[in-house]
This record gives sequence, structure tokens and C-alpha cells, in this order.
Amino acid sequence: MRIAVDAMGGDNAPQAIVEGVMLAKQDFPEIEFQLYGKEDAIRPFLTDETNITIIHTEEKINSDDEPVKAIRRKKQASMVLAAQAVKNGEADAIFSAGNTGALLAAGLFIIGRIKNIERPGLMSTLPVLGKEGGFDFMDLGANAENRPEHLAQYGVLGSFYAAQVRGVKNPRVGLLNNGTEASKGSELTKKAYELLSAEDLNFVGNVEARDLLNGVADVVVTDGFTGNAVLKSIEGTALGMMSLLKGAILDEGLKGKMGALLLKDALRGLKNQMDYSQHGGAVLFGLKAPVIKTHGATGPEAVRYTIRQIHTMLATDVVGQLVRHFEQSPEKS
Amino acid sequence: MRIAVDAMGGDNAPQAIVEGVMLAKQDFPEIEFQLYGKEDAIRPFLTDETNITIIHTEEKINSDDEPVKAIRRKKQASMVLAAQAVKNGEADAIFSAGNTGALLAAGLFIIGRIKNIERPGLMSTLPVLGKEGGFDFMDLGANAENRPEHLAQYGVLGSFYAAQVRGVKNPRVGLLNNGTEASKGSELTKKAYELLSAEDLNFVGNVEARDLLNGVADVVVTDGFTGNAVLKSIEGTALGMMSLLKGAILDEGLKGKMGALLLKDALRGLKNQMDYSQHGGAVLFGLKAPVIKTHGATGPEAVRYTIRQIHTMLATDVVGQLVRHFEQSPEKS
Repeated sequence: MRIAVDAMGGDNAPQAIVEGVMLAKQDFPEIEFQLYGKEDAIRPFLTDETNITIIHTEEKINSDDEPVKAIRRKKQASMVLAAQAVKNGEADAIFSAGNTGALLAAGLFIIGRIKNIERPGLMSTLPVLGKEGGFDFMDLGANAENRPEHLAQYGVLGSFYAAQVRGVKNPRVGLLNNGTEASKGSELTKKAYELLSAEDLNFVGNVEARDLLNGVADVVVTDGFTGNAVLKSIEGTALGMMSLLKGAILDEGLKGKMGALLLKDALRGLKNQMDYSQHGGAVLFGLKAPVIKTHGATGPEAVRYTIRQIHTMLATDVVGQLVRHFEQSPEKS
Repeated sequence: MRIAVDAMGGDNAPQAIVEGVMLAKQDFPEIEFQLYGKEDAIRPFLTDETNITIIHTEEKINSDDEPVKAIRRKKQASMVLAAQAVKNGEADAIFSAGNTGALLAAGLFIIGRIKNIERPGLMSTLPVLGKEGGFDFMDLGANAENRPEHLAQYGVLGSFYAAQVRGVKNPRVGLLNNGTEASKGSELTKKAYELLSAEDLNFVGNVEARDLLNGVADVVVTDGFTGNAVLKSIEGTALGMMSLLKGAILDEGLKGKMGALLLKDALRGLKNQMDYSQHGGAVLFGLKAPVIKTHGATGPEAVRYTIRQIHTMLATDVVGQLVRHFEQSPEKS
């Protein structure tokens, strides 16, 4: 297993990235890491150089670079070189905490789509509150628009992922809709409902956004515009409530401090439940190799979780299985 | 001011509805209420009969009735009679906590659209966390699909509402999108961006779902599918976190009880902030009269807030102003 790491991507790069890789090495000493980036910036954080190769480059893609232009013009950028390594068969997967749009572009244009997959999508495992596990949600915004056929393919991709990577038996696949009845929805979701029903999936029908965090399904598919809005709504609400609670506790003075002390574990539990980085990063799914993105503000622990996720994806060969599945399933459109 | 009240709509009808009307009478003794429903079920909750008329009917629409069919077949239903009263000029506004779809159908087919408004939408005032006020968000799901022209009209409707009913000066109107840059979005939002820019509005451009509860705009417009999903995501996340916190506190035993006691005010403040019923109900906006819906599980206090909202809508003649505005603005399509 060889993972190409964009060591320069993200707000805390390369420190957080390299420290995370060092943590992951303890879990998986057999993984070979290729660190792409500035050698003198990376080297200080190496605590163990076995199975580590640094591929030095001065160039990197910034968070405000225009994605497609950046990929085309910055040929020596750490992210571009890492993607090239996957394309050339020198690495098995790529990991970056950098510019999401640029990583999507690098995935599509350099690594390429699985045959018969029309529109790769972005997928994350989000938490189910009060329970172990989570649900796989896609597309989170790789596409601004989707056709019904894409949503049916997301059902297959998500189902393979939940089964192989998360070990969910016979994953329940739901379609995000504006009501649970089969007749509900837009033209897009009505048609997607039909296509999903015809797939060899444990399709449980329409699910509503209100029930996502309750674990109404193991996989939930939607178009990229809606998925992006729903993900950001969940994050915005959770962050807003946590900061409101913090503010209200501070306003209570000593009483608040004592109360917060007594409820320390309960409050920490709430925060941990909402933090889904333990499930790893977002997968740009539908490409010929695992392409994984974590938050720009990621810390070493989240990098470690993401490497564990990539390790499972490679160990189960989930992408290889998908390649074989879609080879036999001609494009429906 | 004459308000037609569907006394039989909602889980707690007629008790919660009639008790709420009794509370509202203390605030606004001048309002004439017409209560549509079963007289012997309504009468026990009347504590003051001045300015109250009961229009007896045996029939009512249930929460699981198919909306359009119910409106057409149950001609004597309390909701249908109340809508007829508005159409016939016997009442100035209608209020119901019943079947949302049926109220939409009654609004569209009985009361009718404002001239040149193509697609009335559902609008609620949602909270801005940690601050007074809120933001007006539409369409929350009256339509499964919208065209760009509809979103531009929602900008005008919402801006009038924020200014007239909530007293916001020069309301900031935002377009929900998958990024803040002007170039972002789907075909729908890109075109809606252009149209909103051309309207005589304080259009602040694209806003993201993550920032809604931070008060990024006073009015936010989106299509009915996305609006429905975002509203339900916010509600689901807030409810999920509250119940998780409650569970975590209970798990802590005596320590949790003491902590919760010390933080009672802070926790109540959090709950109150998320409860947006103080702003009233959802407006089916774009119709010739105020048509207002509250949650089925509504209690008397929420009914009181909703009557206050309707009172302000009638006192400011916001719908009359919109009728005149759109008469002069030919349909753009």
C-alpha cells in the first residue's frame, strides 16, 4: 500500500499532515507514504523515516486558487504531482487537506473516472446521534446539478462503501426527498426513486432531512446542490448551538462554571458525537483510485483517522470491486 | 380586522386553537374571530364571547387526507369554509394548524394568487442565534421545483415582509447557494442571481447554509426542494442535539442533575433561541390575503404569537402593498 500525500494542503500544513502521518505509521507500519512538498518544511516533523519518501517540490495550490486553472498551470504543485503518481501506478491512493475544487479537478482530469460512472460525487460518513456508526451521504457538492442516473449510481457506490469499508450488512439506501411517500418529490427525485428501486440494493425509499441524524438509513443519496446545503445546515446548526450554549454558560458566571464542570463529560460527549472526523475524510467517489479530502483546518488526529479509512479502502479493494461492477453495467441514460 | 380560524386543524384542536384565540383577544380586543368547526367542541374553551362567531360544521380535513382531493370533496370542512369566507370578503385572513398541503391547495384554488405572482411560496421567520430578530426564509416546500423568476419574486415578497411586518430597515436579501462567489451555483441559482441583482432590492448576493443562523441576511430565498431540506436539517440537528444533551445529563446521575440545575437558565435560553414560534407561523405568501399555518402540535402560546403576526400583516396591509407592486410589474418569464 502506497499513499501519495499532498503534504502542503490545508491551513496547518505541512505540520498537521506530517504529524498525522507519523501517528498513522504506528497503526499501519506497512504503508509506504510519499510526501509531496517542500522538503525542508516537511523534514522537521519526521520522527521515523522508514517507509517515508519525500518528493520535493516548491509549488503548491492555494485555497483561493481557481481549481481547474490551478491544476492545469501549476504542473509541479504538490497535489498535482501526488495525483500523477496515482495515475502512473506509483501510488494507490491520494490524500489532501487542500483546495477541494482543485482536488476534484485533479481526480477527474488526472486520475480519471471509473468506466460507466458519469459523475463522481463527494461522500462523507456523518454521525448518527446517540449510536455507534453513521451514514454515508453523497453527493455533498462535487456537482452543482445531477441527473437521476447519477443518484442511482451514488446508491451503488454508497452501498459498496458502507458494506466494505464500514462493515454494515445489507446497507439500507435512502433517497433524500421532501416527503417519505413514493409519489413525493421533484422530477429528479421521482425518476431517481424508480431507478434506485430497479437496482440490486436494499433501497428503503425516501427519507427526510429531519431524520438523517437519527440513522434512518446507512446510505443517503441526493444531488450535489442539496447535499451541500444539507451538510452545511447541519454543521451550521451544530456549531451555532454549541457556541450559544458556551455563551449562555459564561453569562451565568460562577454558577455557570460549576454547572459546566459537573456536566463536563456530558458536554464533551455531545461535541464528540457531532465530530465525524473519526470516520475519516470525504471520498471523491467514482474515480479509479481512492481520492480523499479532509477539512483544511484538520489536525494530526483527523489525518490519522483518514489514513485508517484509506487503509480499509485499499485492504478491501472497494474501488477495484466498483470498477468490475460498473464494467458489467452499461451506462444508463 | 376579521380572521377566519380553522378551529379543527392540528393535533390539539380545537382546545389549543380556541385557548390561543382567547389569549390573543387580550392583546387585540378589536379583532373579530370567526371560528369554523364543531360548535359543541369549541364552546367549552370560550372564556369571552365578544367579537367571536362560531360557524358550525361537522366536517374537517384530516392530517393524512390527500390535499387537493380533500379540498375538492370536503366542501363543508372547517378549513374550506374559512378559505371561502376570505374569498367572499367576509374575512381578511385565514389561520390553520391543519394539513399543510390542504391549506396550500385551499389558498391557491379558493383564495387565489396575487396577479403576476407565479408560484406562491411558504415562508417562515427562523431564528438568528444569539441575537434578537431572525431571517425570513422561503420557499420552504410549497413547490417541489422552481424557476429563477420565482426566486426573484420571493426576494421581493420576503423584503416587503421583513420591512413591513418585522420592521427591518432596508432588508438584506440573500440567495442560498453552494458558495458565496457570484459565479457559483446551479443553472437555477446563477440565473436567479442575475434576476435578483436587477430587482430594486438590497441584494447581498449568495449566502451559504452554514451561515443562515448567524444572520448573514434578513431574507433568504431558495427553491422549495432545497428550502424544505434545509429547514428539516436545521430542525433535525437542533432536536437531535437537545435530546443527546438531555440523555448525556441523565446518564451522569446525581452529578448530571446538579449540573443541569445550575445550568437551568442557560439550557432554557438555548431551547428558547431555537424555538421560532414567537415569530408566528408560516405564511403561504403570494396569495391575495394572509394565509397562515402553524405546526400541527402547536399550543395556545404559539397560536397567540401567530394572531399577533396576522394582526401586523393586516395593520401594515403588506399583502395589499404587494398586490399593487406586482400589478405594475408584468410577469417575467
